[in-house]
Amino acid sequence: MATKTGVRPTELPAAPLTMEGASVLHQMMRIRWAEWKRLSADQQQATVKEAAAWLAPLEKEGKSALFSMLGHKGDLMFVHFRDSFEGLKAAELQMAHLKLWELLEPTSSYLSVVELGLYDSSLKLYRALAEKGIEPHTPEWNKEVEETLGRQAEAMKPRLWPKVPGSRYVCFYPMNRLRGEDKNFYTLPIEERQKQMEAHGMVGRRYAGKVQQIISGSIGFDDWEWGVDLFGDDPVQFKKLIYEMRFDEISAVYALFGQFFVGVRCPADKLGELLAGRLPEK
Amino acid sequence: MATKTGVRPTELPAAPLTMEGASVLHQMMRIRWAEWKRLSADQQQATVKEAAAWLAPLEKEGKSALFSMLGHKGDLMFVHFRDSFEGLKAAELQMAHLKLWELLEPTSSYLSVVELGLYDSSLKLYRALAEKGIEPHTPEWNKEVEETLGRQAEAMKPRLWPKVPGSRYVCFYPMNRLRGEDKNFYTLPIEERQKQMEAHGMVGRRYAGKVQQIISGSIGFDDWEWGVDLFGDDPVQFKKLIYEMRFDEISAVYALFGQFFVGVRCPADKLGELLAGRLPEK
Amino acid sequence: MATKTGVRPTELPAAPLTMEGASVLHQMMRIRWAEWKRLSADQQQATVKEAAAWLAPLEKEGKSALFSMLGHKGDLMFVHFRDSFEGLKAAELQMAHLKLWELLEPTSSYLSVVELGLYDSSLKLYRALAEKGIEPHTPEWNKEVEETLGRQAEAMKPRLWPKVPGSRYVCFYPMNRLRGEDKNFYTLPIEERQKQMEAHGMVGRRYAGKVQQIISGSIGFDDWEWGVDLFGDDPVQFKKLIYEMRFDEISAVYALFGQFFVGVRCPADKLGELLAGRLPEK
Amino acid sequence: MATKTGVRPTELPAAPLTMEGASVLHQMMRIRWAEWKRLSADQQQATVKEAAAWLAPLEKEGKSALFSMLGHKGDLMFVHFRDSFEGLKAAELQMAHLKLWELLEPTSSYLSVVELGLYDSSLKLYRALAEKGIEPHTPEWNKEVEETLGRQAEAMKPRLWPKVPGSRYVCFYPMNRLRGEDKNFYTLPIEERQKQMEAHGMVGRRYAGKVQQIISGSIGFDDWEWGVDLFGDDPVQFKKLIYEMRFDEISAVYALFGQFFVGVRCPADKLGELLAGRLPEK
Amino acid sequence: MATKTGVRPTELPAAPLTMEGASVLHQMMRIRWAEWKRLSADQQQATVKEAAAWLAPLEKEGKSALFSMLGHKGDLMFVHFRDSFEGLKAAELQMAHLKLWELLEPTSSYLSVVELGLYDSSLKLYRALAEKGIEPHTPEWNKEVEETLGRQAEAMKPRLWPKVPGSRYVCFYPMNRLRGEDKNFYTLPIEERQKQMEAHGMVGRRYAGKVQQIISGSIGFDDWEWGVDLFGDDPVQFKKLIYEMRFDEISAVYALFGQFFVGVRCPADKLGELLAGRLPEK
Repeated sequence: MATKTGVRPTELPAAPLTMEGASVLHQMMRIRWAEWKRLSADQQQATVKEAAAWLAPLEKEGKSALFSMLGHKGDLMFVHFRDSFEGLKAAELQMAHLKLWELLEPTSSYLSVVELGLYDSSLKLYRALAEKGIEPHTPEWNKEVEETLGRQAEAMKPRLWPKVPGSRYVCFYPMNRLRGEDKNFYTLPIEERQKQMEAHGMVGRRYAGKVQQIISGSIGFDDWEWGVDLFGDDPVQFKKLIYEMRFDEISAVYALFGQFFVGVRCPADKLGELLAGRLPEK
Repeated sequence: MATKTGVRPTELPAAPLTMEGASVLHQMMRIRWAEWKRLSADQQQATVKEAAAWLAPLEKEGKSALFSMLGHKGDLMFVHFRDSFEGLKAAELQMAHLKLWELLEPTSSYLSVVELGLYDSSLKLYRALAEKGIEPHTPEWNKEVEETLGRQAEAMKPRLWPKVPGSRYVCFYPMNRLRGEDKNFYTLPIEERQKQMEAHGMVGRRYAGKVQQIISGSIGFDDWEWGVDLFGDDPVQFKKLIYEMRFDEISAVYALFGQFFVGVRCPADKLGELLAGRLPEK
Repeated sequence: MATKTGVRPTELPAAPLTMEGASVLHQMMRIRWAEWKRLSADQQQATVKEAAAWLAPLEKEGKSALFSMLGHKGDLMFVHFRDSFEGLKAAELQMAHLKLWELLEPTSSYLSVVELGLYDSSLKLYRALAEKGIEPHTPEWNKEVEETLGRQAEAMKPRLWPKVPGSRYVCFYPMNRLRGEDKNFYTLPIEERQKQMEAHGMVGRRYAGKVQQIISGSIGFDDWEWGVDLFGDDPVQFKKLIYEMRFDEISAVYALFGQFFVGVRCPADKLGELLAGRLPEK
Repeated sequence: MATKTGVRPTELPAAPLTMEGASVLHQMMRIRWAEWKRLSADQQQATVKEAAAWLAPLEKEGKSALFSMLGHKGDLMFVHFRDSFEGLKAAELQMAHLKLWELLEPTSSYLSVVELGLYDSSLKLYRALAEKGIEPHTPEWNKEVEETLGRQAEAMKPRLWPKVPGSRYVCFYPMNRLRGEDKNFYTLPIEERQKQMEAHGMVGRRYAGKVQQIISGSIGFDDWEWGVDLFGDDPVQFKKLIYEMRFDEISAVYALFGQFFVGVRCPADKLGELLAGRLPEK
Repeated sequence: MATKTGVRPTELPAAPLTMEGASVLHQMMRIRWAEWKRLSADQQQATVKEAAAWLAPLEKEGKSALFSMLGHKGDLMFVHFRDSFEGLKAAELQMAHLKLWELLEPTSSYLSVVELGLYDSSLKLYRALAEKGIEPHTPEWNKEVEETLGRQAEAMKPRLWPKVPGSRYVCFYPMNRLRGEDKNFYTLPIEERQKQMEAHGMVGRRYAGKVQQIISGSIGFDDWEWGVDLFGDDPVQFKKLIYEMRFDEISAVYALFGQFFVGVRCPADKLGELLAGRLPEK
């Protein structure tokens, strides 16, 4: 099917462009309460002090945050944003050498990088290059793509390298796009996918100010394709947002979800309070 | 397809309105019987006394309840209804500091909020607003929706903020609505979903007086979309109700079920009896 | 489609009538052999004596039985038939206080009630009531149903309240009826389901005298819809029966199976022998 | 569809005849290396001696064999062939009382009986009996079937009651035949299944001398329908055989596979060497 | 459909030829940090020294490598390339006798052999032999196939017997080709599969110099059909490569993925640094 510009949409590259930013690690763990209680008051204080001293400066920079999780999937969730996987691994090793670590039991984790999926500008660019007759993946095409990405990179920086938001609650879950035998997101034309993503974004925008979303990509890194972090002060808004989105075509038909993890923010200087059995006030 | 009122049903918003109430946490856990038996009589008594003292006032207010579970999925199930997730997390932390906690091993949990799905009134309202030509999600539409919800909120209060019923038995299970490649609940027109929900409710009504049901929503909070609690004095009625419902279109075609947890109520002041190996009489 | 009696089959209620009897609990567990061997001869003897003393009278009444399981899913399986879930829970608590329990590790369990699915008589009754023009679920309809069930109850008693058969072997497995997107047992007309059940029963009858089957329902109680116990003296007959049945339409198309558990009967007074490493003779 | 002999293929019984032989148990387990190393040289020697003394005579008779497994699924796999499930259970109990057992941790197991699926002769017999007008499952039909099986039994003995082959490597995996909503092996006509089995066997025959296969049936015994043991001296031949077979219709469309377990044979008298960290030479 | 050469493509053998090389074992494990920290400085040093002395020469030969993993799936991943499964098993046994092993807990593993799938040359050869009228799997056909493979073997050697690449990062994951009820890779004509593999390879080639890929086959050895190792210095390239490939027909429609494991290379002589909590510099 030829269009008026002589370009067949189906000839456009299938994969949208993406931009990658911060390396992200979520760590979920249980507290061995019996062992904690067996420590002397001095040992408890030393344990808290050391861990808080490690976390506090990272927290201030927005690079690491601690959440007190609800339910049996874990008692604590650490969220780390770093410049590289090496930065994440260094954090893991440092934590393993805290006294606190001996009271913790890892239950889950998630590895990803902040990702911006550029469906909109990819489609525009792919069409423009196709109209100019530039073949995908030729040096000329690559050059144009890189220049376009380069021009956008600066503006995207705050979204690519975010700080962990300071909200009271977090909701984290991994997800996939369906590749079913009949319904397969990856075989849809890019035009169709772009349209679905756009409609999806509309719903999200209605929750601006209530829920802040950070998407990270984990293809090649972890067991699902994306990780989603929602931050907000009223957890019911997480439910309302995801429930409303579930009726979007892209979610209703093409979304598969993993486990959901919910936590309440615990600042480094309130860790002692938490371990003493009191949820820190906001 | 235009209707006589000039409104196309398919233009109605897809997501029904919901009202949210109490925050709910189910905690399932095993008793480490060997460790319990190793305690001295004094230690046992102190353990029971402390735990019962924590639970008793919450039980009286209908905010927390203890069930003695059947089978290997756990020995105890605590059900907590609170005003917020902070209230639930505070409860978790308090429990972790009970002596009893050192004898317990978490096996599962479920996090949700009491939810009323308003298919009926959503559909009426959406139709009315559509007939008035008010576009979904415009400020005017939002205002009308909020007013309608506001008018109903007071009447709904007892159902949104329930006490844990005092029945002898509980049955808890999580569930999803199917999003299959061919059969997808979320892509059905809202009119069709409303009709199925209504027929489903009819069956439930036949068990009034025998089984009390509390539905809580867990999209964004836990690994299934809803949690269902059934309370009653004859557990065979749980089976009869769910079996009969399984032939409803909404269950036969669109329901996916998680694990089922069944327990017998154990009042706080009977915890010692339970731990001594005797099931408290009703 | 109107029939000659003016009744449309599709108007018949979809759910067949069922009768419920004994409450059933299967408990699978591993023996901590190292801990057993660490006990002194006196402690071993006391452990065996206490457990056997608990089990022996229940065994005699046909209310509880012990099986020595094959494979890593467990070393022991207890099967309990009781009058109520309270009776089962009481048994669980009594067992948890046996010395033996400290050597055991629960690996699985299954909770259900003996169930007779009355497809045959349901269909006859539904048709008769429909011909009389009695609407389903009206007081009149309910009365007729209750009377019919009442008349059959006495005759069914031995099947509803069975004793644990004394056979050498047991095979237990849970199962569901398929609710697939295309093949869905629950949306078949009751006439079709009745026909399939009948054909299925035919195969079973060919194994009379070789295999005794007890079906229990677990909708609302455990993670599958039914539990099946096969009792017999030659385990190869279990395989032959289930393999032959697998070609029945109701199994080939509509049966989903869980785990299979196989055990050899161990009488209470042979528990010591078993723990000493010798399989008791028949 | 009537054939020239007046017999409609679809009237033939669906289930093929099978012959059952040896009872089979696979036991996979991890070695607790730290505990092994903590034993004194004397204790280690006693542990090895006792276990080897138990295994050696069984090994000689071809009734039990030990394999050193690759990967984390286990360190050891015992394969037992016995006359009955009682024989297997007796072996399990004897092993549980070896000193070695305290260093082992069961990770998996599989229970089955050696099975010959007689598609070929079943089809011939079913056709012959149908042509004689003998109804399936009548006493006359049963008699003819039993006589036919009886005549073949003697010739089948070596295949029904095999010894564990002496090859260097074993590959064990369980499998099912697909019962999908669209592709269902169990609803295919027996003629079609026979044809597919025959083609499948052809591929197997090309590996004669390289790979020896023992099929055991586990319907009613374990969580899959069949267990497959491949024995050979070059493990790459396992891969080549299974890969080539995967393109057969019966595998490509109708085979579901469980976990794969691969091990290197360790003779009883080399157990000490293995536990000392040296793989015994062939 | 007859071709001009009189050969019907569908008569070509379905299975492509493969060549097998090095035996491969991936071992994932957690460090028991608390036990490590409990060791004296001397014990720690001895533990590190012994393990490093074992690993260093293998590392130099490119036969074994150590990676520090990200996330809770493990702290360490060892990748072993050997001449045979016996070589792998010997390595496993040697490692089990290192002091380090007592601080490790296996969490996963993967067993495979380096595999070259020769779709391209298989198709050419199969066509050529078909044109010559040589029947598949006849002695003549086998001879021609062996000669062809023999001619290619020498050239393939570096790819069949690779050294573990020296890159900073590794990404390992297992995968299957889909055998769905409707979309089944194994029932596609070999011509179609060859075409899809070729297109897939094109994408890979665009990442030359950034990502080095080693494919190993695990049919008959482990729970998935293939293992994929990606080596590179920038892990974001792993994501970009796999994401781009996911839109290829062969991935979009026919690829199923297992867990993903990501690690940072840790040279033998830096093990002490790693255990001391510092990520070794590149």
